[in-house]
Formats: sequence, C-alpha cells, structure tokens
Amino acid sequence: MAILKRDPNKKKRRWRLRHRVKPNTRPGTIIVPEKAAPTRLHATAYGPDEIVEKLDCTVAQIKKLIGKYPVLWIDAVGLKEESVIRELGELLKLHPLSLEDMSNIPQRPKIEGYPNHLFAVAHTTTYKKSLAISQVSFFAGEGFVVSWRERTNDCFDFLRKRLEVKGGTTRSSGEDYLLYALMDAVIDTYFPALESFGDKLDDLDDRVEAGHSGDIVKDIHATRHEIRLLRRIVWPLRDAVDGLMRKHDWLIGEEAIIHFRDCHDHVVQVLDALESYRDACSDVRDHYATAVSNRMNETMRFLTIISTIFIPLGFLAGLYGMNFNPEASKLNMPELNWPWGYPIALGLMGTIALGQVYYFWRRGWLGGNGEKPKNASPQQMKPPNK
Amino acid sequence: MAILKRDPNKKKRRWRLRHRVKPNTRPGTIIVPEKAAPTRLHATAYGPDEIVEKLDCTVAQIKKLIGKYPVLWIDAVGLKEESVIRELGELLKLHPLSLEDMSNIPQRPKIEGYPNHLFAVAHTTTYKKSLAISQVSFFAGEGFVVSWRERTNDCFDFLRKRLEVKGGTTRSSGEDYLLYALMDAVIDTYFPALESFGDKLDDLDDRVEAGHSGDIVKDIHATRHEIRLLRRIVWPLRDAVDGLMRKHDWLIGEEAIIHFRDCHDHVVQVLDALESYRDACSDVRDHYATAVSNRMNETMRFLTIISTIFIPLGFLAGLYGMNFNPEASKLNMPELNWPWGYPIALGLMGTIALGQVYYFWRRGWLGGNGEKPKNASPQQMKPPNK
Amino acid sequence: MAILKRDPNKKKRRWRLRHRVKPNTRPGTIIVPEKAAPTRLHATAYGPDEIVEKLDCTVAQIKKLIGKYPVLWIDAVGLKEESVIRELGELLKLHPLSLEDMSNIPQRPKIEGYPNHLFAVAHTTTYKKSLAISQVSFFAGEGFVVSWRERTNDCFDFLRKRLEVKGGTTRSSGEDYLLYALMDAVIDTYFPALESFGDKLDDLDDRVEAGHSGDIVKDIHATRHEIRLLRRIVWPLRDAVDGLMRKHDWLIGEEAIIHFRDCHDHVVQVLDALESYRDACSDVRDHYATAVSNRMNETMRFLTIISTIFIPLGFLAGLYGMNFNPEASKLNMPELNWPWGYPIALGLMGTIALGQVYYFWRRGWLGGNGEKPKNASPQQMKPPNK
Amino acid sequence: MAILKRDPNKKKRRWRLRHRVKPNTRPGTIIVPEKAAPTRLHATAYGPDEIVEKLDCTVAQIKKLIGKYPVLWIDAVGLKEESVIRELGELLKLHPLSLEDMSNIPQRPKIEGYPNHLFAVAHTTTYKKSLAISQVSFFAGEGFVVSWRERTNDCFDFLRKRLEVKGGTTRSSGEDYLLYALMDAVIDTYFPALESFGDKLDDLDDRVEAGHSGDIVKDIHATRHEIRLLRRIVWPLRDAVDGLMRKHDWLIGEEAIIHFRDCHDHVVQVLDALESYRDACSDVRDHYATAVSNRMNETMRFLTIISTIFIPLGFLAGLYGMNFNPEASKLNMPELNWPWGYPIALGLMGTIALGQVYYFWRRGWLGGNGEKPKNASPQQMKPPNK
Amino acid sequence: MAILKRDPNKKKRRWRLRHRVKPNTRPGTIIVPEKAAPTRLHATAYGPDEIVEKLDCTVAQIKKLIGKYPVLWIDAVGLKEESVIRELGELLKLHPLSLEDMSNIPQRPKIEGYPNHLFAVAHTTTYKKSLAISQVSFFAGEGFVVSWRERTNDCFDFLRKRLEVKGGTTRSSGEDYLLYALMDAVIDTYFPALESFGDKLDDLDDRVEAGHSGDIVKDIHATRHEIRLLRRIVWPLRDAVDGLMRKHDWLIGEEAIIHFRDCHDHVVQVLDALESYRDACSDVRDHYATAVSNRMNETMRFLTIISTIFIPLGFLAGLYGMNFNPEASKLNMPELNWPWGYPIALGLMGTIALGQVYYFWRRGWLGGNGEKPKNASPQQMKPPNK
Ligand SMILES: [Mg+2]
Ligand SMILES: [Mg+2]
Ligand SMILES: [Mg+2]
Ligand SMILES: [Mg+2]
Ligand SMILES: [Mg+2]
Ligand SMILES: [Mg+2]
Ligand SMILES: [Mg+2]
Ligand SMILES: [Mg+2]
Ligand SMILES: [Mg+2]
Ligand SMILES: [Mg+2]
Ligand SMILES: [Mg+2]
Ligand SMILES: [Mg+2]
Ligand SMILES: [Mg+2]
Ligand SMILES: [Mg+2]
Ligand SMILES: [Mg+2]
Ligand SMILES: [Mg+2]
Ligand SMILES: [Mg+2]
Ligand SMILES: [Mg+2]
Ligand SMILES: [Mg+2]
Ligand SMILES: [Mg+2]
Ligand SMILES: [Mg+2]
Ligand SMILES: [Mg+2]
Ligand SMILES: [Mg+2]
Ligand SMILES: [Mg+2]
Ligand SMILES: [Mg+2]
Ligand SMILES: [Mg+2]
Ligand SMILES: [Mg+2]
Ligand SMILES: [Mg+2]
Ligand SMILES: [Mg+2]
Ligand SMILES: [Mg+2]
Ligand SMILES: [Mg+2]
Repeated sequence: MAILKRDPNKKKRRWRLRHRVKPNTRPGTIIVPEKAAPTRLHATAYGPDEIVEKLDCTVAQIKKLIGKYPVLWIDAVGLKEESVIRELGELLKLHPLSLEDMSNIPQRPKIEGYPNHLFAVAHTTTYKKSLAISQVSFFAGEGFVVSWRERTNDCFDFLRKRLEVKGGTTRSSGEDYLLYALMDAVIDTYFPALESFGDKLDDLDDRVEAGHSGDIVKDIHATRHEIRLLRRIVWPLRDAVDGLMRKHDWLIGEEAIIHFRDCHDHVVQVLDALESYRDACSDVRDHYATAVSNRMNETMRFLTIISTIFIPLGFLAGLYGMNFNPEASKLNMPELNWPWGYPIALGLMGTIALGQVYYFWRRGWLGGNGEKPKNASPQQMKPPNK
Repeated sequence: MAILKRDPNKKKRRWRLRHRVKPNTRPGTIIVPEKAAPTRLHATAYGPDEIVEKLDCTVAQIKKLIGKYPVLWIDAVGLKEESVIRELGELLKLHPLSLEDMSNIPQRPKIEGYPNHLFAVAHTTTYKKSLAISQVSFFAGEGFVVSWRERTNDCFDFLRKRLEVKGGTTRSSGEDYLLYALMDAVIDTYFPALESFGDKLDDLDDRVEAGHSGDIVKDIHATRHEIRLLRRIVWPLRDAVDGLMRKHDWLIGEEAIIHFRDCHDHVVQVLDALESYRDACSDVRDHYATAVSNRMNETMRFLTIISTIFIPLGFLAGLYGMNFNPEASKLNMPELNWPWGYPIALGLMGTIALGQVYYFWRRGWLGGNGEKPKNASPQQMKPPNK
Repeated sequence: MAILKRDPNKKKRRWRLRHRVKPNTRPGTIIVPEKAAPTRLHATAYGPDEIVEKLDCTVAQIKKLIGKYPVLWIDAVGLKEESVIRELGELLKLHPLSLEDMSNIPQRPKIEGYPNHLFAVAHTTTYKKSLAISQVSFFAGEGFVVSWRERTNDCFDFLRKRLEVKGGTTRSSGEDYLLYALMDAVIDTYFPALESFGDKLDDLDDRVEAGHSGDIVKDIHATRHEIRLLRRIVWPLRDAVDGLMRKHDWLIGEEAIIHFRDCHDHVVQVLDALESYRDACSDVRDHYATAVSNRMNETMRFLTIISTIFIPLGFLAGLYGMNFNPEASKLNMPELNWPWGYPIALGLMGTIALGQVYYFWRRGWLGGNGEKPKNASPQQMKPPNK
Repeated sequence: MAILKRDPNKKKRRWRLRHRVKPNTRPGTIIVPEKAAPTRLHATAYGPDEIVEKLDCTVAQIKKLIGKYPVLWIDAVGLKEESVIRELGELLKLHPLSLEDMSNIPQRPKIEGYPNHLFAVAHTTTYKKSLAISQVSFFAGEGFVVSWRERTNDCFDFLRKRLEVKGGTTRSSGEDYLLYALMDAVIDTYFPALESFGDKLDDLDDRVEAGHSGDIVKDIHATRHEIRLLRRIVWPLRDAVDGLMRKHDWLIGEEAIIHFRDCHDHVVQVLDALESYRDACSDVRDHYATAVSNRMNETMRFLTIISTIFIPLGFLAGLYGMNFNPEASKLNMPELNWPWGYPIALGLMGTIALGQVYYFWRRGWLGGNGEKPKNASPQQMKPPNK
Repeated sequence: MAILKRDPNKKKRRWRLRHRVKPNTRPGTIIVPEKAAPTRLHATAYGPDEIVEKLDCTVAQIKKLIGKYPVLWIDAVGLKEESVIRELGELLKLHPLSLEDMSNIPQRPKIEGYPNHLFAVAHTTTYKKSLAISQVSFFAGEGFVVSWRERTNDCFDFLRKRLEVKGGTTRSSGEDYLLYALMDAVIDTYFPALESFGDKLDDLDDRVEAGHSGDIVKDIHATRHEIRLLRRIVWPLRDAVDGLMRKHDWLIGEEAIIHFRDCHDHVVQVLDALESYRDACSDVRDHYATAVSNRMNETMRFLTIISTIFIPLGFLAGLYGMNFNPEASKLNMPELNWPWGYPIALGLMGTIALGQVYYFWRRGWLGGNGEKPKNASPQQMKPPNK
C-alpha cells in the first residue's frame, strides 16, 4: 500500500512513498527492505493438553514440529534474512506472490486465498507524539498460522500468556481461532491512537478558545493527516475481514466466524470514531477561521471609529490654521478675531465627535468584542402589528 | 460504538471515547463500566389469559418462570453486577460475545444472530439542554425477550401498562411482537430530541435576523454536533431493522414483520428530519456569514466616504496654512490677501464635498444599509431597444 | 415523513415538525390531526358499460356497491371523522397500520403491500407565493381503489370527467389503471411548482444583474429551501413507483405496468429539473457573491486612490505650514521667502499627483468598474521570443 | 426531459422548462409543440442487393413497402402533422405512450421495450456560439426502424450515402445494425461541442493570465452551464445504451451488440471529457479568484505603505506648525528659532521615512507584484543546527 | 479516451482533445493519427525449450511462425502503416472495431472480449518535467499475444531479457502469463510518476513554509491537474483488470488469475497513492491560503496601529496650529502663551500615544507575527473556580 509518510525529521522527501520494489523485477521476487529488522522465528505448537514453545528457533526445528500438534503458530519478526523467508515459504508451501507482498512493505490490508493457504496483511500502530505504522502479515493453512511482523513490538505478548493457560478457549480451539485472536490483538492497537487524536483535538479546541493562534492551522492539518493515515489502513481492513467471513469456510469454522464478526464490529467502531474526529477537525478549523475573521473585523472597526472621529476634527483644525489675511477684508476668517472664536471651534469639534460616537453606538459598533447586537436597527423599531 | 461526547462540564477530554474495554482482554470478558448503575431485574411472564410480574427478582426466581408461559420478558436495568449478567446469560444460553457487547458500552446499533438467540443494540435518548444517549440491548429467543438498559428511564413504562390490559395485541402475540413493541418504544424517544433541534434552529434564526452575534457560530456548531451525534445512532439502526425483517424468520413471524416495517419507516423519518435539520444548520450559518460580511462592507464603505470627503478638504486647508511669504513676491500665495479669498476657499471645499456626495449617491454607496440598488449603472441606461 | 415547514406567518416554530403521533401510542391507533378537514366520501362504481356516482355518501351506501361493478373508486377527503376511517377500514379489510399512516400526516411517499391490499402515500402540491404540500393516500385491492386526500383540491376533477366518457381507456380498464390515473394526476401537480421556481430564479438573476441586493441572499435561500422540500417528496416517490412495477403483479397487470413506467419517467423528469434548479440556485448565489465582492474591491480601490494621492500632498502642505523662523538662520525654511516658492510648491504637488495618477493608470486601477484589464503588466511586455 | 434552457435573447423566462404537456391530459395524447417544424417522411427500403428510396412520401406509400425488403428505414423530420404521426403509429403498431413521448419534447434519453417494438430517445447537438439541443426518437421492430427528428439537420446524411454503396456492412446487415448506425451518428454530434468547450476554456485561461477580468465569472458560469446541459443528455444515454445491449436480444443480434458496445464506449468518452472540462472550469475559476485576491492584497499593501510612511511625517510637520508662542517662555517651541531647526526636522523626517522603507523591505512588502518571498523572516534566520 | 492535455508549448488549444476520428466515418475504419511513429514489428515465438526472435520482421514472416511454438508474441510499435495493421489483423482474425480503437488514440483503458480474442487498452507513462502518456493495446488469443505501442519506449525491455532465460516462469507458461507480464510492465511505469508527484509536493510545501509565493497557486494547480490525468488512466484500468480475472476463463488460467490479482493490487496501490497526493495538494493549498491571509491581516493591523496612534496626535498638532487671535480675547487659545504650553502639549501627545500602545498590547495586537495569543482577554481572567 502506498502509505504516504510525512517524515518530521527529514527536511526533504516528506510526501515520499516508502520502500517499494524496483519496477520490472520478476513476480514473486523477495526484496528485503533497507533497514529491515533481523529475522527471528518463534514457534509455538499446542493442543488442548500440551504446549511446546521454541524461542529463536530455525526452520529445521520448525520442520520437526509440523503435524505433531493440532496447531502450530510461527511468530516471526523482521524481514532481513531473505533465505529464512524462502525456506519457511518452501516448508509450508506458501505462494511466492504472498511472500513478495509480505516483504515488499507497505501493502494495503487484504485477505487473499491461495491454493493451500490464506494470506492476510494488516498493520499495527503505536502512538508516541506521532502515528507509527508497522505491517504484520499472516499465513494460515491446515494446522498452522504464521504471523510475520515488520518490527518487534508487544502486541502479541498478552495473547501468548493466554495461550499458556490450559483450558482457555484459544488452547482448545483450532488455527482459525488463533488467526482471529491475532487479528483482534492487531485491531486493539488502534484504540490508543484514537485516544491521542481525541486529546489533540481537545488541546486544539482549548487553544482556539483561549485565543492562541501560533501554529493552530498547521497542527489541525497534521492531525487531519494522521486521521487520514489511520483511516487508510483501517478502511480496507473492514472489507478484508468481511471477505474472510464469507469466502473461506474450508479453514474458518462456524464459531470462529462469530468471533471474526466481533472483529469486524471493532473495525467499524474505529472507522466510526475516525469519521467523528474528521468532523471535529473541520469544526475546530471553522472555529479558528471564525475567530481570526472576528479579530480582523474588530481591527477594521477600530480603525474606522478612530479615523472617522478624528478626520473631520482634523479638517476643522486645519481650516482655522489657514493663513488668509483677516486684514485684507472682513470676509477673510473673521472668526479668528471673534472673542469666542476658539471656544466655539472647540465646541463644534466636541459636538461632531459626540455625534459620531452616538451614531456608532446606535449602530452597535462600539461593542468591545466586535459582536454586539445591532440595537434599534430600523426594521426592529417598526410597530409590532406589522 | 465510538460515540464522541463533548462533555460540557469537564474542561479536559471533550472529544474522548467513552468507556471501552482495555486492549488485549480475552474475547467474551464482561467488564463492568465505571459508574455503572446497580443491576435490577424485573420479570414479566404472560400469555393471552394470564400475566405474572416479579419486580426486583433474582435469577433463581426467573429460572422458575421459564417455559411456564408463552412469553417471558426480563426487563433489566444497570450493568453493575457482573455475576447477575453471567448467571442470566448461562440460564438463557446467551453467547459470551453478546454479553460483552451489552456491558462494553457504547456499541453501534446492530442486530446479530447467534445460534439460539438474536442480539440487538439500540439507544434511547433524552433531551434536557443537551442530548443524552443511553444504550439498551435486547436478547430474543424461543419464548423470551431480555431488554437490558444501561440506566433506568421511563421508556418502557407505557408498554408495561398496555401489557397489563387483557385482550390487547401485545398480550395475545408472541415474543416477536414484544421485541417489536420494545424497539418501537426506543425509537419513540428520538422525536422529542428532533423537536428540540427545531426549537434551537428557530432560536438561532431569530438571533441572526435580530443582528445578535454573541455566540452564534459556537451554537450552530454545537447544534450540528448534536445532529450528527443522533444521526450516528439512528443511521446504523436503519440497516439493523432492515436485516431483522429479512434474515431471522425462525423467530420473527409474518405479522411481526409488517410491524417492524412500520418501525423501519419511523427510523427513516427520523433520518429524513435530521437531513433537513443539517441543511437548516448550513443555511443559518450561511445567513450569519452573509450578515457579518454585510456589516463589514458597511463599515468599509462608511470609512471610505468619510475619508474621501475630508481628505481633499484637509489638503486644501493645509495648502492655505502654508507660510510662504506673500511679501517676498506677488507669486507667493496672493490668495491670502484677496478680499474674497476665504469665502472662495470655503466655497471650493463645499463644492468638492457636494461633488463627492453626488458621486457616491450615483454609485449607490449612500444606502444606509449598505445594500441599495446600484441605480443608473451604465448598462441600465442603454436604450431599451437593445 | 418529517417535512420541515418554515411557516412564514408564525414567528416561532418555523423549523417545526408538523403533526405527529404522541410517543408510546399503541401501533395502529388512528389519531386525527388538529385542524383536520371534515371527512366526505364520494363513491364511483363503474365498468365498461355503466357508471354510478354517489356524492357525500355513507359507509353503509358504499357497502351496497361492493362487488356489483368491476371497479369501485372511493374518493375520500378530510381526516376529521375517525369513526368513518375505521368503518371503511373494516369494510374493505384495510390494515390498521396503513390507516394510522394515512391519518398521521405527513408520511414519506411509499408503497407497501399488505396481505390483501396495497397502500400508497404521495403528495399533491400547489404553488401560490409559496409551496403548499398536501398528503394523499391510496388503498388498492381486488375491485376497489380508495384515494384519501388530506384537504380538498381539484387534482382529480379532470380524471372524473374522463371517467364519465363511455369507451375511454379508464372506463374499460381495471383498478390497476385507475390507480395509475390517480397517481398520474398527483404527479401532474408538481409541474406548476417547477415553473414557479423557474420564474423565481429568473427574477433573482435579473435583480443580481441590475445591482439590486436588498434581500437576495434571503430569497435565494428561500427558493433553495422550497426546491429541497419538493425534492424530499419526489425522491422517495421514484423508488415507490419503481417498487410498484416490480413487486405487485397480483394486482398490477402488464398494460398498467407500461403506464406506471410513464409515471416513473415523469417523476424522474421532475427530479432532473429540480437538480437543474439547484445548480441554478448555486450559480445565482455565486454571481451575487462575485458582484458584492467586486463592489467591495471597487470601494477599496477608490479609497486607496484618493488617499494615496492626497496624503503626500497634505504632507507637503503641512511641511510649508511649519513655523520655523526663517529669521533665526538662513537654513530655516528659506523657501518661504523665495519669490517662486509658492508656484514651485504647487508644481511639485501637481507633479506628484499626476505621477501617481499615471502609475495607477498603468496598473489598471483607474477602471471605473473596477475590472479593467491590467494593461502592460510586466510579463506581457517581455519579448515574444521567450 | 426537463432541459432548462437559458434563452440568451429573451429577457424573461430564462430558466424555463421547454414545451410540456398540459397537466391532466389523457395518457397517450399527441400534443404538437408550438413552432414545430412541418412533418416530412423519407422512406428507404433495402436489402443486400437492392435499395429503394422515396423522398417526401406519404404513409400510404410507406404501407406498400412494408415486408417487401429486409429493412425499411423511415426517416421522419418535424412534429407538426399530428395526423401523420398517428397514422404511421397505427400502421407500425407503435404504442400511444411512445408516440406521446416522441412529440412531447424534450424527453430524457431512454430506451423502452414495448410489446412489439423498441422506443429510444436521444439528442443531437449543434454548436454555434451556444449549445443547441434537438431531440431524435427511434422506433425499431421486426424489419423496420423509424427515426424521427424534431428539426431537420445533417446528422444522417453521411449514413444515407454509406447505405447507397452496395456491399457495405450496413446494406448487408439487419435493422439492428441500422439502429446502431443511427445512434452512432447521433453520438458523433457531441464531439464538435466538446471541442468548442475546449476552445472556450483556452480563451478563458488566456484572459485570466492576461489580467483581463471583464466578464470572466459570467463566462465561466455560462460554460459550466453548457457542460452541465450536455452532461444531462449524455449521462442517461449511457444507461440507455447499456440496457439496449443487455435486455433486447429478440431484436439486437450478437454482432450488433459488439457495435453497440463501441457506441457505449464513445458515450463514456464524452462523459469523461465533460468531467475533465468541469474540473478545468473549477481550476479557471480558482485561478481567477486568486488573481483578483492578489490584486486586492496588492492594493491594500500599497495603501498601507504610502499611508504609514506619510502619516508620521505629516504629524511632525503639523507639530512644528503649532503656534505656541516662543516668546512666552523658553520652553515653547525653541526649535523654531534654532539655526539648524528646519534641516534637523527635515533630516528626522527623512530618517523616519527611510527606516520605514527599510522595515517594509525586510518584511518583503515592497515586491512590486505583491508576492515576493518573505526574506529573512525570523524563523529562517535561526542557526541551521536546530 | 478523452485525455485532456494542457500543451505547455502551444499558446492555443491547451484544453484540446487529442487526435480523434472524424465524425461519421464508417465503424471499423483505421485512421492513422497525424505524426504517428513508423510501424515496426518484432516477433518472438517460444516454448519451454526453444525461442525464436525476429526483429523488424514482416507480416509474411510472422505468418510462418503461427502454430509452430506454444506462444507467439508480436511486439509492434508505431501506427503509421495502415496496411500492416490491416494485414496483421486479417492474419490473426482481429475484429475491425478493436483495430480502430488501437489506432484511434487515445482510448480509455478497457478489456473487451471479441469472438476469438481479447482486446485490452492501457497506457504507459514517463515523467520528465511533465507527465507524458502513451497508449499500448493488447490482443490475446489462442497461442498469441500482440502488444502494440503508440511510440517506442523501454517498458518491455526487461521482460524480453527475462524471456530469454530458459527455465523462467514466463518461458514455461502460456499466453495468459505473457499477457500478465506485459500488463505488469505497463503498470510499473506509474511508480516513477508517483515519486515525481511526491517530490513536487515536498517542494511546494517547502516554498509555502519559506514564505515564497511566486507561482505557488499555479504550480499547485498544475500538479493537481497531472494527478487527475494519471488517475483518469488508472481508475478504469482497475475495473478492466478486475473484469479480465472474472470473465475470460477460456484464455486466462487459474495460476494466471493469481498473478492478475497481484496486478490488480498494484493498480489499487497507485490509486491509493493518488488519493493521498490529492489530499496533500488540498492541504498545501490550504496552507498557502492561510499564509497569504495571515500576511494580509498583519498588513491591516500594522496600518491600524500606525494610523490610530498618529491620527489623534495629528489632530492635536493641527489644533494648536489654528490661527485664532489670542489678542482678540482671553478665551482665544490662551495655551499658546502659557509658559509650559508646548511641553504640556508634547506630554499630552506622548500620553495618548503610550495609552494606545498599552491598549494594543493588552489586545495582543503587537505580536510581530500577527498571531500572538490574546493575553488577558476577559474570559481568561475570571477566577478559576468557575
Ligand atoms: Mg465535515
Ligand atoms: Mg459538516
Ligand atoms: Mg473536511
Ligand atoms: Mg474544505
Ligand atoms: Mg470543511
Ligand atoms: Mg465541515
Ligand atoms: Mg445543504
Ligand atoms: Mg446546499
Ligand atoms: Mg455543511
Ligand atoms: Mg462546510
Ligand atoms: Mg450545505
Ligand atoms: Mg454550506
Ligand atoms: Mg453545482
Ligand atoms: Mg449547493
Ligand atoms: Mg455550498
Ligand atoms: Mg459548483
Ligand atoms: Mg455548486
Ligand atoms: Mg455552491
Ligand atoms: Mg474539481
Ligand atoms: Mg478539486
Ligand atoms: Mg466545482
Ligand atoms: Mg464549488
Ligand atoms: Mg474544485
Ligand atoms: Mg472549487
Ligand atoms: Mg480530503
Ligand atoms: Mg478536507
Ligand atoms: Mg480536494
Ligand atoms: Mg477543493
Ligand atoms: Mg480536501
Ligand atoms: Mg480543500
Ligand atoms: Mg469552501
């Protein structure tokens, strides 16, 4: 899948496509990604009564476990050793195209049926300051499930503990239930990310209300980008889980389907929350735009009031600063020599200023916050019988 | 379901997800929500001829009623007692996943078929100042219906009264009709919320028209948020009721289907009204934006008129305030000594001012409300034969 | 159906839901709306050769007509008499839920099959200043059609005249053709409303072009609201008519289906026109927004030109109005005593003013309408070989 | 179909619905449109070996040709003579509803099956200054095809010439291939309109880049309106052609279906181009809005620069224009009598002016085009190790 | 397909439709496009054990290879020689309509089944400064695949090398796998274009952040246009590949379907990335709009601050520049003769200026970047217990 990652550290190549196979390679070629984690295999074979765990084992050790126990779970991490990938693929007869998809990260979530196994792709997420996405692939066939994670993380630790409990549902069920339990653990990693989105939106909301504006638009866009990123890995997963329930009854039994339906329900819940967050993002942005626009309007109104009050006064002052010679004729600025000339001029100025203030007050322009009601506007004052 | 609740009281955590199960818990685990209401069971067993009601009864008392009457309705409230939930689940063979969904509020509305019962989730609403949503779960099997409400409320009181009337349709019908009647009571709680939205929109409309603007944008967004919240619990309910009519004929009979169709029709009506309200929200917002923009334009025009009238006058006043020495030469400001100098200057100023006022009047800029027709614009004055 | 009606007369409750059943009433309850019109029944029984009409008849009189003629048309108006509704329902075995829907106006358009009759809801419209919508319900079974209008209107008058003509298609066809003819008459009432929308849009267009702006935004929103209102009753009707053609062949024959297809075609035409009008609404609004924005820009440019021309001139005038004492030193404002001081100052002012006017002319800012080409902009003057 | 035509000549009734049947007419009534063109029939009967053409023939003449040749093509133009329409309908047993649709222009494109013939509606377009649309109806049954054009045009001329060539595919194929060839000729008329749209968009693009702005918004809206108009007659045609291929195998053979698939492909190409043009329209509008907004910003910045440079200077000039009496005390404006008073004042003014110019230059406000980089903004100047 | 190409070199005809058949040509006519590349055929016949390659061969030479080897691949380039197209078409019995589509570039991507061969259209892309698209058509039947490129390019070179390796999957598979390998090579050409889009968006993002603004809007639109262009050739390809897998099992075997599914997955990845880029485009545009708007607000605020500080000061200066005669009365400007008159006036001015600066600082208007927090706004200062 073409997940676009905006790398916050690197200046260049933010909207880059992550690792992908070079064009024109042969179909089914396994190409190890740069900086892949070292490959480690961990096998767990179990039935209702017994369980065998082999940490950091080899393909040869796994070969001996095949067919001995009802279910064999191979929990692999890291894509560095191409030879291990190929050997395990040959041992379990995994299709080359599915091995290519596993190693050619990132893929879109999907579930594909191959002649003798299922192949599924999903993603786990972690959220520390920003959203990190990591691919996990599943191969499931008669008696075995392989889970292969791109990088090590703790998402299957709890499941492993549950598996060790004798008499638990996982222990007494088949490979279909194990596949469900693994998928469920993957989907559980989305909820902390959802909570982080909620916290971020709360924070943005608070900052908009407090009148902060530093990087709000940037932060809103960053949050929206992460919401879209998560949505892009959850949306196809919904269809994938749905297809799993309907198309692969040779492997997935009745009871497992009821559990996968619960899985599907969780995915729909995540999508639902993402939809809500996207709307919340839009609302925060709208609030911010309104706040900015209100402040701009306030600025404009302030300018208007100060300017329009003083411009006529300034004109009057200028008028009586003219140098027409009162001695040249009686018509030339006789006011200058009136005994009450100056007080009258001051009074005129004061009257004009107060008149304007009154006019602005009537129009509701004097509201300090720029949003007062438009009191006594003409249409409001008409008699009520209209 | 991931209902996002903007808690008006708490400052922090507004866009939070409400209670949800901790990641990595075993499927089917019943986890009692914090602050859950105490659990109370109320059993009603009835047939056309007899009815037995047991208030605040125990699971053991219910066990005795099973199979004795055509229909057994267990009306439970509160999710606090995990043991009661588990015991009743075992008594009626309810699937652990359905019990988990019941206790893990909030869930999305849905109807799921389990091997020997149906499981349905819906939500009741109440509207006091803001929208409050409460989950109700239904389990329906051969001879019984369980309704389990998150919190106590009065939504089933009227149904209980109807049930007590001998000869009523509910009494003489089976568990399918009871399930319908309960769902119908739940859907009826949406209509008062719809009315409140209508009142809010009326009020917003009035405030926009009256020129108020205090918190209009905020209030519009709050209303739109609540409309979306209600829509989010009604939209999936539509599909759920539709599925119920088509897929579960082992429980739902012909006559009940006709009634569920009426139920479906009500849900569609609610969605239709929500759609209308959403459009109304957009219209109110557009009206407000137009009003704000008009006021801004009016302010700008006022500034322009005052400024452009006085700026040339001020220049003229300044011109004749210059101190060039008329005695240095005849070219230096001879106007100052003209007998009619001052009156001519005043006349010039008056002419300029009136000229501008006329120009503005012709351009239609003098309309007090900032929206007068642009009289006598060039294209209007062309001869009519064109 | 939750039709939202913006009552132009009442100040309060504009976005209200119209009459609806109180929550928690028993399913199938007939609740007469407030201000319902008095109930009147009008029966017409006919076959190819004979026709009997009974105006203002009773249910008892209708009972005698049943089964005597090939087709019985009961044309009812008004929902006031609950007893008449119930009696006629019992006579023709109409389902209680369908009678509830008929009386609980408004409903969404729909067609529902009940065990022994069809039930259809549609709406007639009239357009006098504003759009008025009135519900009409149909019940059709073996040998009868009931049409029940909320209020009296003339929409079936022409059909009644056609029915009186012996040998006409309606007379010689069955109840399916009668149902078609009634539906067709209902759909015909939408076209005058469409024409009114066209007239309104023409008028709005003219007002925008003429520069009027009084209440244009309000009127555009009102028109768009009515377009949405009509769309909301026509859109579900499309699916209803479609369902009628495909699902009810026990009542609707081959030839009638061809006619219902024509009906469906008309509904699609109405929707198509509504879509066009909605686009036209958006275009008118965009035109208006552009016109307002252009006028605002023009105002701004005017202010800029006047201000920027006079501000430097005013500064110069102020400069030579300073009172530095030329007698204190030769450096203090010697210009004041130059013989050509004043003419040089005037010339400088004139030069600055003309320079600015030339600059504005070059930038294309002097276009009276604020929209002149930006002649001779830098990139235009580059040599053509680039 | 409710094509909305904005008549450029008539002032009133631009958004009018074109000719439509009066409400409440009997189904199947043929109503001749006002200003209908006179009716002319042109019959061509042919087979692989022979061809007979009769120009301006009567229905009686056509009657004699029926059944004599493998294919009979009746090419009719004009809807004026209702009697001719009715007679030909009776001769070929055409359904009254299809004849009504043919005469009641405009209809939406569609293909309908009647008991013994197909009925299709499509539209031809011509483009001279503005888009003109004209309806053409087709009736196709065993051995005949009727094409009936609203007005005369040259769209079938080329096909007629191809028909005269002995051995051509059309001559040796049946009525299904003739129907295909006619439809293909109709669809070919859309391409010149598409080219005109392209030319108009090029022209608009040029005008926006050149800084013209006269009527650009109006012209963009007009183009978008025409794109929508064409889309409205092509979109339903796609479904119609698709239905023709899948549902009418009694008339349309295998080989003809391959050709209709090509037809369908052309329709999809037209829609694809219209989609592109619509996007191009939006882009041109966005470009224009950006250009207008940039010019506005430029104006504002110019005003700011001139005002803020001269306002402090003007204040200083005013300051030293005050008339405080230096002789009243030594504190009263001693500067006026300083020997260097005036040069110092001028120097102060110059310093303030240059300081502001430098500040504006640093902020990037002096870019002549109003879009220069914001050189040396604070965050850019931080050390690179951050 | 109607690909709209904005030709950057030609001034006119940017939104033109590329080469298309003249209206009214006979179906199946091969019309060589202007400036078509010369036709060259290159035949490769192979089986698991042997391979024969003939460069620049004739149709006659190809005729001899037919049926001799399991798979015959004819790799043709250039559409100039109509005779060669027709001859090869006759040799392999290719349908005239498919040959027309091949030569009538551009077509929309599609896969069509003809009686004895498949016909597919796809496009290769190259990206040097701008996106170039070139059509490639495929014909596949029993034992042969024809690939016909509009222009020569290197997209099949790698495949040819793989084919020469004995024992490779391609060599040992049939014509279905060859068709898959060719399609896969075509789809691989889209990834470099995707990378270029990413680079462009990075660059635009950098320029917006650095405050550049030269042609950003133009460049954003150009990038969005290219994204749409690519999307328009990839979107229909998705459906085409899907149809290939489901409908043509007479040619496409089980194992090839698994490979085509991989092909389909790549197409979906490309679409997914395009969707992301489109969102990124919108975000960059929003960022830019915000940046422009912020700069505008900053300008306005600067103007307001300078103006409102100096306008009252200027008034005061003008006031004491009035020439009222202090000698005419004691009321006339006695301040002018006060000993402390001038210092008091200066002090008054300073107080007013500082008061305003303090007011602006309190409102947060003095933030240099125009985005400082609105410190100490009223609601912030309320006691925390609220
Ligand atoms: Mg939204
Ligand atoms: Mg929204
Ligand atoms: Mg959004
Ligand atoms: Mg947006
Ligand atoms: Mg938005
Ligand atoms: Mg939004
Ligand atoms: Mg809307
Ligand atoms: Mg809208
Ligand atoms: Mg909206
Ligand atoms: Mg919006
Ligand atoms: Mg809207
Ligand atoms: Mg809107
Ligand atoms: Mg539109
Ligand atoms: Mg709209
Ligand atoms: Mg809109
Ligand atoms: Mg639009
Ligand atoms: Mg629009
Ligand atoms: Mg719009
Ligand atoms: Mg677009
Ligand atoms: Mg767009
Ligand atoms: Mg658009
Ligand atoms: Mg738009
Ligand atoms: Mg757009
Ligand atoms: Mg747009
Ligand atoms: Mg988006
Ligand atoms: Mg968006
Ligand atoms: Mg977009
Ligand atoms: Mg957009
Ligand atoms: Mg977007
Ligand atoms: Mg956007
Ligand atoms: Mg927008």
